[in-house]
Amino acid sequence: MNIAAPSIENAGPFTRACGWHKLLPNKIVKMAKKIKKLGQDDPRRIIHSLKVGLALTLVSTFYYIQPLYDRIGENSIRVVITVILVFEFSVGATLGKGLNRMLATLSASALGVGVHHLATLFGEKGEPIVLGFFVAMIAATVTFVRFFPTMKARYDYGLLIFILTFSLVSVSGYRVDEVLHMAHQRVTTIIMGSFIAFVTCICIRPVWIGEELQNLIANNIEKLGNFLQGFGSEFFKISEDRQPLSDMAFIQGYKSLLTSKNNEETMANLARWEIWHYRFGLFHPWKQYVIIGILTRQCAYKIEALDNYLKSEIQTLNEFGRKIQEPSTKICSESGEALRELASAVRKMKQPTSVNAHIENSKTAIENLKFMLDTYDLEDANLQKIIPSAEVTLTLIDVVPCIVKIADAVQELASLAHFKTPATSVSP
Amino acid sequence: MNIAAPSIENAGPFTRACGWHKLLPNKIVKMAKKIKKLGQDDPRRIIHSLKVGLALTLVSTFYYIQPLYDRIGENSIRVVITVILVFEFSVGATLGKGLNRMLATLSASALGVGVHHLATLFGEKGEPIVLGFFVAMIAATVTFVRFFPTMKARYDYGLLIFILTFSLVSVSGYRVDEVLHMAHQRVTTIIMGSFIAFVTCICIRPVWIGEELQNLIANNIEKLGNFLQGFGSEFFKISEDRQPLSDMAFIQGYKSLLTSKNNEETMANLARWEIWHYRFGLFHPWKQYVIIGILTRQCAYKIEALDNYLKSEIQTLNEFGRKIQEPSTKICSESGEALRELASAVRKMKQPTSVNAHIENSKTAIENLKFMLDTYDLEDANLQKIIPSAEVTLTLIDVVPCIVKIADAVQELASLAHFKTPATSVSP
Repeated sequence: MNIAAPSIENAGPFTRACGWHKLLPNKIVKMAKKIKKLGQDDPRRIIHSLKVGLALTLVSTFYYIQPLYDRIGENSIRVVITVILVFEFSVGATLGKGLNRMLATLSASALGVGVHHLATLFGEKGEPIVLGFFVAMIAATVTFVRFFPTMKARYDYGLLIFILTFSLVSVSGYRVDEVLHMAHQRVTTIIMGSFIAFVTCICIRPVWIGEELQNLIANNIEKLGNFLQGFGSEFFKISEDRQPLSDMAFIQGYKSLLTSKNNEETMANLARWEIWHYRFGLFHPWKQYVIIGILTRQCAYKIEALDNYLKSEIQTLNEFGRKIQEPSTKICSESGEALRELASAVRKMKQPTSVNAHIENSKTAIENLKFMLDTYDLEDANLQKIIPSAEVTLTLIDVVPCIVKIADAVQELASLAHFKTPATSVSP
Repeated sequence: MNIAAPSIENAGPFTRACGWHKLLPNKIVKMAKKIKKLGQDDPRRIIHSLKVGLALTLVSTFYYIQPLYDRIGENSIRVVITVILVFEFSVGATLGKGLNRMLATLSASALGVGVHHLATLFGEKGEPIVLGFFVAMIAATVTFVRFFPTMKARYDYGLLIFILTFSLVSVSGYRVDEVLHMAHQRVTTIIMGSFIAFVTCICIRPVWIGEELQNLIANNIEKLGNFLQGFGSEFFKISEDRQPLSDMAFIQGYKSLLTSKNNEETMANLARWEIWHYRFGLFHPWKQYVIIGILTRQCAYKIEALDNYLKSEIQTLNEFGRKIQEPSTKICSESGEALRELASAVRKMKQPTSVNAHIENSKTAIENLKFMLDTYDLEDANLQKIIPSAEVTLTLIDVVPCIVKIADAVQELASLAHFKTPATSVSP
């Protein structure tokens, strides 16, 4: 198709190899750049990879060093498997998987041993039939349980391991004499592997998913604030002196949160496992973060409507536009400020102080706007010219109640999670 | 706190047990209802659970029946494990996991055997050091590769199994003499297990994730159409004769698609594995469904703005409202019809026929509206009373280009996937 390709295709093998030689460095450079970017975007990824390598080397010494091997024997390979399967990027995910695996193995082993003993009562011929029946029944039941949304969210891995271990113990119990011993070994090695994964994950530069969620929610609220403040200055000023919007990407940061619902829910589910975190502890209200996330998203949908006006061709402000300019900019800046303050409150776990003042200011601006809209003299006005500005105004009026809802939810979070009250507001 | 609780707490053990007895049936009934609902919502869940039970019973016969056991031996337990781990709800997920597991085991076993042979060259003392170095290095590298979004989407499970198998083969190779034999057995049992899972999954009432995705996308488009048609009749008519919106839930069905992005992407990734599906085949353009999904969502964000007007207190239509009523209802019904037709085209894989006509009708209605807005006499009008209706109108005008984009994307899908042309439009 292109000119370069046939010249390689038609050439001898040597020239062809040379041709590939010329293409190869390009590809390698591209790949290297991609890898570099992935590492630079989040250096914790590199640390995590090294941690996995370290944990595996640690655990495989069980196998290499004779005295250790003599103690645990061949089963130490199951410790290796557990470390690989349990080790995740965040502490929450690692703890969740590890605890799931441990509890599931423990309970399924017990059940497996029980069923095995029950089956032996039915004689040599009856045993495989009873075992087969129980394996099928329990596998089908637990598989069905995995469909429950609440179970799927937190215990999916555990339920899978439950089926696995139960089948393993009860099926292989048919051939192995010491079922109890086998089950016991399984449980011990899995506990050992999980603990090695936990220790490596928590002790070396841990990634707490709870902190991640807190930051995500705070950033999302802040992004809404950035948009409103950016919108206020861009829409009502640029229309007079139209310039390209330089920090459009910054203003439009909120777009990422339109579809982050699943992500936030998953993070909240994982964060619950991080019961050892020094800041959050056992009863941190992770659900409230999800609720704030939902409210933030509802606000973002409304903002999405405003964003269209930034992109569309805006005519210079007419008389009507100039009239609404001042209160509208006020709403943008005040509610943006309120959102930034809320974001900072969530991030620093401190009670917000001046949010209510900002919201009250926005409400006053809304009253001014409403009065103005009610009394505006429409004689000689063209509806199509007025409407874009009027629509922006009405949407802004609509956004403020959303922000009030977010503020209430943050306030509830603050009281549930006992956020610190700032030092200045302490009464004498 | 309440009255019933203390009476149980203070009573003797027998009465207490009776109290629980009374509470228990309630809980059981509730639970039973939940289970029933889960099964009724999607009866395929029950079938899937039974399929898993069946596959496990099938595969565990390897263990019970002596001649079969003699052939495969203890390793047959790995067949059981593979079936449990690979068997998923949809064919795509099962194939994806199975192929990932097979390929990863194959390549990692080969690499593990190679590294084992290399390590033996370094003598008895050097061997564990070389092995440890390779395990750490390869585990760290592959763990890092798992962070690449493209790899994570399709090969995450395979990469995990790669680390697992490589560590297993190279580490346990230190103690086992016949590394090659061990690796070979591993590969064979995993291939056997995967195939048993494939056959059970595909042959008994299979759930094709590709069909699910197609239906999801078609339903989403249809939900937009339902909203627009419902909105047209509700907003402009109910305002005259205000009644409760009976089918509000039906109209607001579109809300589910606001956050379904991740879901659609996951489904498209899984659908690619279903290369044996009779209707889609190997090169079905799954990416295009994701694109249509994105465009549908953009349209839904705009519709979300309209939805607010259904909820807010609507005053009876004023003179302005009556003037825009006819062209606005026209836009709603025509674009709703276009969307329904597009949905049906995606669902039935047939070229859409009358979509363009409907879109043209909407465009004509838009021109009428624009002309009306331009020439409307605003004398004696109150801006705040006019604006809600005017805003609805402008949003509707904004929605039509979105629908055109969806129509173009569906058209592209139709040509990429060779949708059938309807029999009626065949030229003589």
